[in-house]
Amino acid sequence: MWQLYQFPLCPFSRKVRLLLGEKGVGYELVREHPWERRDEFLDMNPAGQTPVVVDTQRGGQPLIDSLAICEYFEETVDKAAMINGTAANRAEVRRLVAWFDNHFYRDVTGLLLHERVVKRVAHRAAPDAKGLRDAMKNAVGHLDYTDYLLDHRNWLAGATMSLADFAAAAQISVADYLGGIDWKGHEQTARWYRGLKSRPSFRPLLAERMEMVGPPPAHYDNVDF
Amino acid sequence: MWQLYQFPLCPFSRKVRLLLGEKGVGYELVREHPWERRDEFLDMNPAGQTPVVVDTQRGGQPLIDSLAICEYFEETVDKAAMINGTAANRAEVRRLVAWFDNHFYRDVTGLLLHERVVKRVAHRAAPDAKGLRDAMKNAVGHLDYTDYLLDHRNWLAGATMSLADFAAAAQISVADYLGGIDWKGHEQTARWYRGLKSRPSFRPLLAERMEMVGPPPAHYDNVDF
Repeated sequence: MWQLYQFPLCPFSRKVRLLLGEKGVGYELVREHPWERRDEFLDMNPAGQTPVVVDTQRGGQPLIDSLAICEYFEETVDKAAMINGTAANRAEVRRLVAWFDNHFYRDVTGLLLHERVVKRVAHRAAPDAKGLRDAMKNAVGHLDYTDYLLDHRNWLAGATMSLADFAAAAQISVADYLGGIDWKGHEQTARWYRGLKSRPSFRPLLAERMEMVGPPPAHYDNVDF
Repeated sequence: MWQLYQFPLCPFSRKVRLLLGEKGVGYELVREHPWERRDEFLDMNPAGQTPVVVDTQRGGQPLIDSLAICEYFEETVDKAAMINGTAANRAEVRRLVAWFDNHFYRDVTGLLLHERVVKRVAHRAAPDAKGLRDAMKNAVGHLDYTDYLLDHRNWLAGATMSLADFAAAAQISVADYLGGIDWKGHEQTARWYRGLKSRPSFRPLLAERMEMVGPPPAHYDNVDF
């Protein structure tokens, strides 16, 4: 049995979960709050970050780093190839995964998680209004970019759904939960996101709540928002 | 002909160059300083980062993101496979590439580049002594980890040389150029690094200088340091 160490608003774990869902790989969730820096978790992953995937039956080294985990399942499970197409297509998928994992996270999701989750839970401090405003402003620029891509393509990396879509939807869904996305004026991205939200792989994620932060906006888990 | 947009102390470009060198793929260097945020470069790569690889003959989309570039050449050039072995081995290679690209860069190389290159060149400001001290202290912790890995393995990710070694050597070499590495007490890592330094793929990198910062320490390009 695969175990996935994660917390409900970890965007990198969400990317892995969307991929595993599409591939039909079953797994058990283990709740981990990386900001607590639990000794047993750091022994498993010196980077101290979620997600980590462990095979409880066969043992072996844990799978660490969300992209390395996705590449592992892409190589070992044929169903639903998500880093697909020619070498150039695959490079474009990986470019966009890196874009959302690094830049969207740095500019939007990471800021929101810091202000609204880590500060509250680990430091019992109020969020900084400027940090929240910066994240929302940055999100507009990022959705302008996804609008631009979706003007030219059916899916973010090209003609077919790929890991790039999961990386983007994972980040956007966490930002949306935390009130960081203003959907007005982003019809292309909203249409694409509605399509992803209605997939069986996405529904369990949207149903989860992170009890230590407030509830998400009303539109958050509505497929027809 | 492949063109590689980079600057001599870009650790991510160095990782790509080591891989291309081992694979025997020829390329032309194009000097790019990402902190100048040149319009033509941003048009090519909205992330604004080096390296970018372009095929000047066949055209097509530029290759962007250092790991996506490495995966591309790994998939298209059989010689010298560097993400190798079983799926679990490959996951370990990718875990360590992410470790050095993200954590070593954040803790060491990125700090040194900010203090000693970007501040000087872009802001005409002096480096902050605390930033430099932090980077050097963090480097000790990181080399303790590579020592630990090399106590158990011939190469960082296992029995054979891999992209993990190039990712690590790329970061370490830039930190070493900028005076951030104290080699005392890190004999395992020093032995491994001497082996890499003597490879034909590494020699051209060690011979280059970045004229806008001071010269590297005397041991920097010495294979028997």
